[in-house]
Amino acid sequence: MIRVAIIGASGYTGSESIKIILRHSEAELTYLTALPEECGSVEDVFPQFKGRCDKQIEPLDLDKLAGLADVALCCLPHKVSMGFVPKLLEAGLKVIDFSADYRIKDVDVYEKYYVKHTDTGNLKHTAFGLPELFRERIKGAKLVANPGCYPTGAALAIAPLLKEGLIETDGIIVNSVTGSSGAGKNPSEKFHFPNMNENFFPYGIGTHRHMPEIEQIASDLAGKNVEVLFQPHVGPFDRGILSTVYCVPKEKVSNERLDRLYGDFYAGESFVRIRGDAPAVKDVVGTNYCHIFPAYVKGRIVSFSAIDNLVKGASGQAIQNMNIIFGLEETMGLE
Amino acid sequence: MIRVAIIGASGYTGSESIKIILRHSEAELTYLTALPEECGSVEDVFPQFKGRCDKQIEPLDLDKLAGLADVALCCLPHKVSMGFVPKLLEAGLKVIDFSADYRIKDVDVYEKYYVKHTDTGNLKHTAFGLPELFRERIKGAKLVANPGCYPTGAALAIAPLLKEGLIETDGIIVNSVTGSSGAGKNPSEKFHFPNMNENFFPYGIGTHRHMPEIEQIASDLAGKNVEVLFQPHVGPFDRGILSTVYCVPKEKVSNERLDRLYGDFYAGESFVRIRGDAPAVKDVVGTNYCHIFPAYVKGRIVSFSAIDNLVKGASGQAIQNMNIIFGLEETMGLE
Amino acid sequence: MIRVAIIGASGYTGSESIKIILRHSEAELTYLTALPEECGSVEDVFPQFKGRCDKQIEPLDLDKLAGLADVALCCLPHKVSMGFVPKLLEAGLKVIDFSADYRIKDVDVYEKYYVKHTDTGNLKHTAFGLPELFRERIKGAKLVANPGCYPTGAALAIAPLLKEGLIETDGIIVNSVTGSSGAGKNPSEKFHFPNMNENFFPYGIGTHRHMPEIEQIASDLAGKNVEVLFQPHVGPFDRGILSTVYCVPKEKVSNERLDRLYGDFYAGESFVRIRGDAPAVKDVVGTNYCHIFPAYVKGRIVSFSAIDNLVKGASGQAIQNMNIIFGLEETMGLE
Amino acid sequence: MIRVAIIGASGYTGSESIKIILRHSEAELTYLTALPEECGSVEDVFPQFKGRCDKQIEPLDLDKLAGLADVALCCLPHKVSMGFVPKLLEAGLKVIDFSADYRIKDVDVYEKYYVKHTDTGNLKHTAFGLPELFRERIKGAKLVANPGCYPTGAALAIAPLLKEGLIETDGIIVNSVTGSSGAGKNPSEKFHFPNMNENFFPYGIGTHRHMPEIEQIASDLAGKNVEVLFQPHVGPFDRGILSTVYCVPKEKVSNERLDRLYGDFYAGESFVRIRGDAPAVKDVVGTNYCHIFPAYVKGRIVSFSAIDNLVKGASGQAIQNMNIIFGLEETMGLE
Repeated sequence: MIRVAIIGASGYTGSESIKIILRHSEAELTYLTALPEECGSVEDVFPQFKGRCDKQIEPLDLDKLAGLADVALCCLPHKVSMGFVPKLLEAGLKVIDFSADYRIKDVDVYEKYYVKHTDTGNLKHTAFGLPELFRERIKGAKLVANPGCYPTGAALAIAPLLKEGLIETDGIIVNSVTGSSGAGKNPSEKFHFPNMNENFFPYGIGTHRHMPEIEQIASDLAGKNVEVLFQPHVGPFDRGILSTVYCVPKEKVSNERLDRLYGDFYAGESFVRIRGDAPAVKDVVGTNYCHIFPAYVKGRIVSFSAIDNLVKGASGQAIQNMNIIFGLEETMGLE
Repeated sequence: MIRVAIIGASGYTGSESIKIILRHSEAELTYLTALPEECGSVEDVFPQFKGRCDKQIEPLDLDKLAGLADVALCCLPHKVSMGFVPKLLEAGLKVIDFSADYRIKDVDVYEKYYVKHTDTGNLKHTAFGLPELFRERIKGAKLVANPGCYPTGAALAIAPLLKEGLIETDGIIVNSVTGSSGAGKNPSEKFHFPNMNENFFPYGIGTHRHMPEIEQIASDLAGKNVEVLFQPHVGPFDRGILSTVYCVPKEKVSNERLDRLYGDFYAGESFVRIRGDAPAVKDVVGTNYCHIFPAYVKGRIVSFSAIDNLVKGASGQAIQNMNIIFGLEETMGLE
Repeated sequence: MIRVAIIGASGYTGSESIKIILRHSEAELTYLTALPEECGSVEDVFPQFKGRCDKQIEPLDLDKLAGLADVALCCLPHKVSMGFVPKLLEAGLKVIDFSADYRIKDVDVYEKYYVKHTDTGNLKHTAFGLPELFRERIKGAKLVANPGCYPTGAALAIAPLLKEGLIETDGIIVNSVTGSSGAGKNPSEKFHFPNMNENFFPYGIGTHRHMPEIEQIASDLAGKNVEVLFQPHVGPFDRGILSTVYCVPKEKVSNERLDRLYGDFYAGESFVRIRGDAPAVKDVVGTNYCHIFPAYVKGRIVSFSAIDNLVKGASGQAIQNMNIIFGLEETMGLE
Repeated sequence: MIRVAIIGASGYTGSESIKIILRHSEAELTYLTALPEECGSVEDVFPQFKGRCDKQIEPLDLDKLAGLADVALCCLPHKVSMGFVPKLLEAGLKVIDFSADYRIKDVDVYEKYYVKHTDTGNLKHTAFGLPELFRERIKGAKLVANPGCYPTGAALAIAPLLKEGLIETDGIIVNSVTGSSGAGKNPSEKFHFPNMNENFFPYGIGTHRHMPEIEQIASDLAGKNVEVLFQPHVGPFDRGILSTVYCVPKEKVSNERLDRLYGDFYAGESFVRIRGDAPAVKDVVGTNYCHIFPAYVKGRIVSFSAIDNLVKGASGQAIQNMNIIFGLEETMGLE
């Protein structure tokens, strides 16, 4: 039985992780932490767990943690996370980090979009936790950087094209739409119900932090530098990301060839499904699946992908990574 | 041309009032105020007015106000409002107050549900601004207390029954559902989109401040003390209140008689419509109308009413009151 | 391994049942049927099962069914269901019927609200499948009538009061709100998105078919005839029912006594939780739980309950019943 | 007083047109028609007009119409429309046609995307009714083709760029999101509330009929053939279209230059507003405004526009066109 600690358990990725671990037959929750003002019993913090989980969420005590857990799901925000991860590793735990702190390999890029990096030592040895693309690197890892929600959907949508060299490496446009849970649990004007409801808007124009992350994955797959224009939008629904990715093919491609290419690339994958028609966010909500549909349209390849931002885009993928690290069936707790 | 000031113009009732006055052919906005940190041009504070209103929202300056306006729509919260209303009156303005401060005639009741009353002098001379029930009192008034949103819908739903003495004056249950704009513009956990969306819940169990207000109107109509059990709920939509009111009739009543009674009672009213079937919130959203459907069901009379909480339940009714005070067509700006 | 057939698998209760059985460690789907025009692979009919379920939905063949299943979840509409249930029983299967056909014990009442009953023979031996109230009757049953969604929530909200004799047996008002999935999968004007969205309305005024079902359960618990006024409403969300039940207590009751009474009554129940505050629909969505909060308010007892209409109100409760019939852990597949 | 007939008044564009004409001080509704099965009083067909409009919707009688109206808003579907428009013109009316039948100048293109054109004679003399771009052509027109909702938003977003020759005329990508009212009033599986709610999906991949319409406007503005890749999506809200248009600039452009270019291009326009930040659908819902924000991002120009699909994208623009035809203030009824 793998003993799981959740560091920063009081937010949406925390509750989603709790839900998945409660269903997992080879893992158990042993330690949950949060900021002091957000502590309490799980069932008080999250009424949906009333009578389903008798654990407490308590302030982090590193000594206590060391004896209680084999792995930490670290759900802290960026910058905060890299303050704690080294201590979790020193305490002998495997760490799956949800923040951006260990995702960007190029420290300069990280520091341009975020803040000064304070743990470049561990950064070097981090595996980027997108199993369908980098499974082998995850297997032996002590520290896994769980990818961002947008990069997960966007990268899966175009990975076969980049790997196959079928598209130009510039001119890629990722147009994405997320549900509002991506904003996290803290109330704000934008996400106040009377503002967000019946609304739809773009944000982070030219500046969203997931842009360099998508570029890093794409460049890794293409074996050369790839530039991506990423434009996110928010819609009035809870969960899900739909990404519409526009690419310039090097030559005319038939839809049959696209279907075959994607089918072969993702053959054997438990959580990727190639569709014959447009995926809808509701087809994947509440699951760890990514539905993809590539199409040749007016001289472009347009590839659509749908994921649940809190599952495949966060907690589900983290547990998928945990299963890989510990040599378990990759789908455990996730079906 | 009536010159209108809006005191506390930066919230939802402020923007709704602005929208209505912009359409009003005999009234114009001359002065808009808010707390310093919420000031700015109308089009910056409310992007929907971009290029439609060139006014500024500025901190309140009573001297300036005195020369600029004939009437003040006072959209301040309770307790704050009674600090300003006396000054507005002294400055020679008519006042239509949106807060609860001048609604409850019984100071003890007010102080039980709110705070210590600091302006009982003006309270005595206030007209309760529900035109369909108390139009004559509003006509000459200098200070009108604009009713609460729930009391407006609930009172209109049962006024004919109480006036006619058709129902028992105890055992009245008002079960209401409001859209989320009733919560106002300040972000909060409950109304954070990922919490409120796809949700539905009761609140204010046994304690909601509109309960005594409904009881006051009902008692006024019945000519005796009426007790009402009022239970509000919130649903995942922007606007509208549906009230389902359960009453015990003194005798069996036919639906035809109910229809005739309500039709006669509201004959000539511009903003009340008696339906032959269940009203839906969407039938009245964006309008100053109240749709009502009374029915005899299993020994009870169940009366349904639907209003837009920000229009008939707030700003629309305020301008209806303004029109009455100034002897204008009651529907001006509201159709 | 219990072999489960789903008869009428192409609707919302069908897909929800499939989802639960896929998670059930002691049950497996062996046969799925629908009308010919709604047949196909599960993953084509419900894209969310793409790659998760390789079963076909096919037209019903009773001979084939007999050898393939131990139990049938019969998700057919009322009237249709009683045409098939006798054949399913003859084929040797246990049957859990989702329709209203076997819920109402009094044939006259059934025929008043529905149609002529054509299988009164089996009706007599049917267990009413609300485990928390009638578990013993379900244990040996061959045919279980799965309760309606509204009656489940309403009955659980007031069962302790009726059993204890704490309230008058007349004057009970059940005011309920459901999400739109209760309307089923067939498109209609009322539930067309642009009509239902941002809307809220009552329906079935004085005529809803769940009224006699609630009265039957209440009368059974009270040991005498109970009349209930039931008023349903629909709100713009997918899932969940919130019931607000108003009762007249025989005497003043403290909230502490209510809390103790409900705690004792439901002690040991896996799926009922007594809350200390108002339950919200989102606290139970996606689960088989019923959250209840009883309160003494202004001379009444108001009891609130929240369930997921498709889980505790339909498919989840059906599988709970299945578990009871087959002597399995009652929570299997449901946590 | 301009006498207005609405042909096909029973749908969403019909009710929106009624609402606007009711507010219009120089126009009045004189004749409303629909298919026989959709006829009735306006207040029965649309409960929101209860007590606000005493007109009937009746089957079309061309003789009656001729004496009753000066202009017809023809809200019929494509193919049906071109069967009636010639008769409306012969009856001496000006016609503003909401269908696609008179929008596409190239008959071959029309027939590729729609059906055989049966009124090419009138097609030649039709003005394309996008006032901000083609006002002069509308002024004397007898027949105006009211533009599609997507083309309105998309064209306004990039018109200054095309006119100025600032961008390449290939490689334009229009990624749009519409609310669900765009689907019209007829119930369907896709727009059944439990499917559409909490959902988001692309449709019309490579095949949407507004693609050639956008290309026609763009080519007209650029003075040469322009190819556009148009990809629409639907989101779970009632109204509004947000278009995100990606263009390749011929040279690097500063945001200041973009702002100045757009400001100059739309100077004096009543219904276009250039924003300094991202527009949101809710900023324009219920209005005839188009909010635009152009930005230079990573070597591209990305231009965002927001409109209400039923107002600026349909009925509002039609009445704007009507005002132009009859020499009225362009904003009448629309503010």
